[in-house]
Amino acid sequence: MNDKLINISLYDEKWMESLATKIFDDIAELTKDKQGVSRETYGKGETDAINYLSKLAIKLGLHVEVDDAANVFYSSEPIENSKYILVGSHMDSVPLGGNFDGLAGVLAGFLILSYISKNKINLSLPLKVVALRGEESAWYGRNYIGSKSIFGLLTKEDLNATHRKTGEKLSKAMQNCGVDLNKIRSATSLINKESIELFIELHIEQGPILVDRNWPAAIVTGIRGNNRHHNIICKGSAGHSGTIPRYLRRDSVFAGADLITRMDDHWNTIQQHGGDLVLTSGIFQTDSEHHAMSRIPGEIFFSFESRSQDIATLDALEALLKSECKTIERERGVTFEFDDLIKSSPAELDKSIIEKLLDAGEFLGFERASLPSGAGHDAAIFANVGIKTGMIFVRNDKGSHNPYEAMDVKDFMTGLSILKKFIIDY
Amino acid sequence: MNDKLINISLYDEKWMESLATKIFDDIAELTKDKQGVSRETYGKGETDAINYLSKLAIKLGLHVEVDDAANVFYSSEPIENSKYILVGSHMDSVPLGGNFDGLAGVLAGFLILSYISKNKINLSLPLKVVALRGEESAWYGRNYIGSKSIFGLLTKEDLNATHRKTGEKLSKAMQNCGVDLNKIRSATSLINKESIELFIELHIEQGPILVDRNWPAAIVTGIRGNNRHHNIICKGSAGHSGTIPRYLRRDSVFAGADLITRMDDHWNTIQQHGGDLVLTSGIFQTDSEHHAMSRIPGEIFFSFESRSQDIATLDALEALLKSECKTIERERGVTFEFDDLIKSSPAELDKSIIEKLLDAGEFLGFERASLPSGAGHDAAIFANVGIKTGMIFVRNDKGSHNPYEAMDVKDFMTGLSILKKFIIDY
Repeated sequence: MNDKLINISLYDEKWMESLATKIFDDIAELTKDKQGVSRETYGKGETDAINYLSKLAIKLGLHVEVDDAANVFYSSEPIENSKYILVGSHMDSVPLGGNFDGLAGVLAGFLILSYISKNKINLSLPLKVVALRGEESAWYGRNYIGSKSIFGLLTKEDLNATHRKTGEKLSKAMQNCGVDLNKIRSATSLINKESIELFIELHIEQGPILVDRNWPAAIVTGIRGNNRHHNIICKGSAGHSGTIPRYLRRDSVFAGADLITRMDDHWNTIQQHGGDLVLTSGIFQTDSEHHAMSRIPGEIFFSFESRSQDIATLDALEALLKSECKTIERERGVTFEFDDLIKSSPAELDKSIIEKLLDAGEFLGFERASLPSGAGHDAAIFANVGIKTGMIFVRNDKGSHNPYEAMDVKDFMTGLSILKKFIIDY
Repeated sequence: MNDKLINISLYDEKWMESLATKIFDDIAELTKDKQGVSRETYGKGETDAINYLSKLAIKLGLHVEVDDAANVFYSSEPIENSKYILVGSHMDSVPLGGNFDGLAGVLAGFLILSYISKNKINLSLPLKVVALRGEESAWYGRNYIGSKSIFGLLTKEDLNATHRKTGEKLSKAMQNCGVDLNKIRSATSLINKESIELFIELHIEQGPILVDRNWPAAIVTGIRGNNRHHNIICKGSAGHSGTIPRYLRRDSVFAGADLITRMDDHWNTIQQHGGDLVLTSGIFQTDSEHHAMSRIPGEIFFSFESRSQDIATLDALEALLKSECKTIERERGVTFEFDDLIKSSPAELDKSIIEKLLDAGEFLGFERASLPSGAGHDAAIFANVGIKTGMIFVRNDKGSHNPYEAMDVKDFMTGLSILKKFIIDY
């Protein structure tokens, strides 16, 4: 396996690029599905991909460790009594997903480690690379299973979560991968987090910004948190569309449209003043049981989600949502009924790491490109337990969580080179 | 049957009110269903109610005629070679409907005719009262079947329309009621429309305006036409709700909400300038197959209906709808796809009749109360074939087409007294 690429004399950038292409192709082939790849959380594709990497690591002379949550760590040699730099991402994918979401970040670390190891480059702190398991919620409805387990954060509810298709419990799947469930249930850290100097995750961008701005890679400024309402109901009064004049109407669609338009105006204002925010109402419906073209809609329900890097912006937006509803209730004779707000905190990425990553990119001739992450990542778990954390995004067309995700290996190498420069200079 | 009420000495207002109450109660009992009443179009309840009235007419010494569409006409004596005033409404109801929608208008004419006949009041033109069949679309999906038949307007498609439950053809049901189908199929008028001096329909209001303004009755200024789109599709682009910034979004819900809000603003402006208009988007939905809270909604579909007495307002509104869509397409990167516009023309009621009805009301001590009709009525058929037509609305709580419609017989008597004054003074 890859022996030709392993036993050569010149372990340079070109070697890394050839090896990257080979590994991406091999793992895609190994985990392919009807369309794209399927690397199931604590399941076959994920394990196959990890085993492939671990075998290759041994051939490359790297040290391989497996923790009690079946996450796998790679290093030049065993690291004892020293702080280290940790780099990594996740190995699983969504069903019928793309090849790069997760794998790119593990592979970037893996290739840098191999490069440093083969070229015997001295680092001020040793490098460890982690291949995490179970980041995608698509299989068990739970995110960050591998990284949460590392810090003793996986709950009983997480362990009891069931597979969306088979109904099997997550705990069973983990056990099948060799996880020590007693250790996980004890909710203690599997790792001494003080020994981690910093954590960096490279990941493909799941949005369109890098493509739009023509950036091959960019530094992530923070990971957005979100405020979510799954189901807000607006109740008005149904009635004959011809016989009720404007001033006596209590039309739930006009009220809901008014609310969305007001929130859109606030969004625009907040953004013009430099605030980070995205708003989405992914579900917005009249009641199919009762609606009709000639009937004033008496009720709609809708979801409402706000995302921001800044918790103050999220709080302000939630307050604006409530106050606009009050105004609309008065003006339009409707009522809004809110479900419970579900909050997920933003993760702050480390300012000095962001600067150093931007410096590394600039040194290599790239723009000081930065953006927030709208999607969640394992990096948020590391950041939120207090570890200095950074992220690099690599340009990727067509989004993620689909078989069409399209990362150019040249862009991958750009992200990797920024990360390598950062690690070597640290 | 009602003999006590028929054979008295004083045929005054009080007598009419007692007889009205008796007839309303008897017909409600005769046509009652699990809830409210069911008087099926060209079916049992409708026929039973007509037969009740016709028997009573004969006892009262009135003349009864049945036309080839099984509509029934009442008069003091046969009218030959004379123009006449025609008053009436329809006898059918929706399934599980209310007792007053339709019946009130027939009964108002019937009671005035009885009053005039018993008191031997001389009129400049004789009065005829019509009990129309088949006004409600709830049974066969077709409106105004009886009145259309009178003017040869019933189509082959109408005759082939099928009963919503039994699947039986309308033509079959009509035949069972004694209709001459050959006559109907020939599409010729069953009546010499030149002999009708004018037509007046009294009807309960199906909206809330008379209740809101505390008017027992009011004169109808016109019957609104409408422009209808059953299904407009707004297409944007789906995507991860966290990763796509505002300027790259093509969000169909925000676009649709923007459109509704713009149209609401235009509505407000048109109304402030005296225009008659109501707008309704009774159906407004994200695509249930693909929508999710964390997904930018890529597509919505919605209905859009405008109603006005004024065809120019309807045309202007349709043009505004299209131009706002163009603007939103440019601003938000979405596209709107329109289905065919379905138009229904407004019906103009006769200005001199409206004035005379308002005068009659004023003389009797009521406000000069007027309003447009948002719902369609048989009166629109008479108006649109060129007959001078008027309408009187009677206050009615809780709308119509439901078992809870609530007309006070005192309000009915107010409407009736205005109509009676108009007829006697004509």
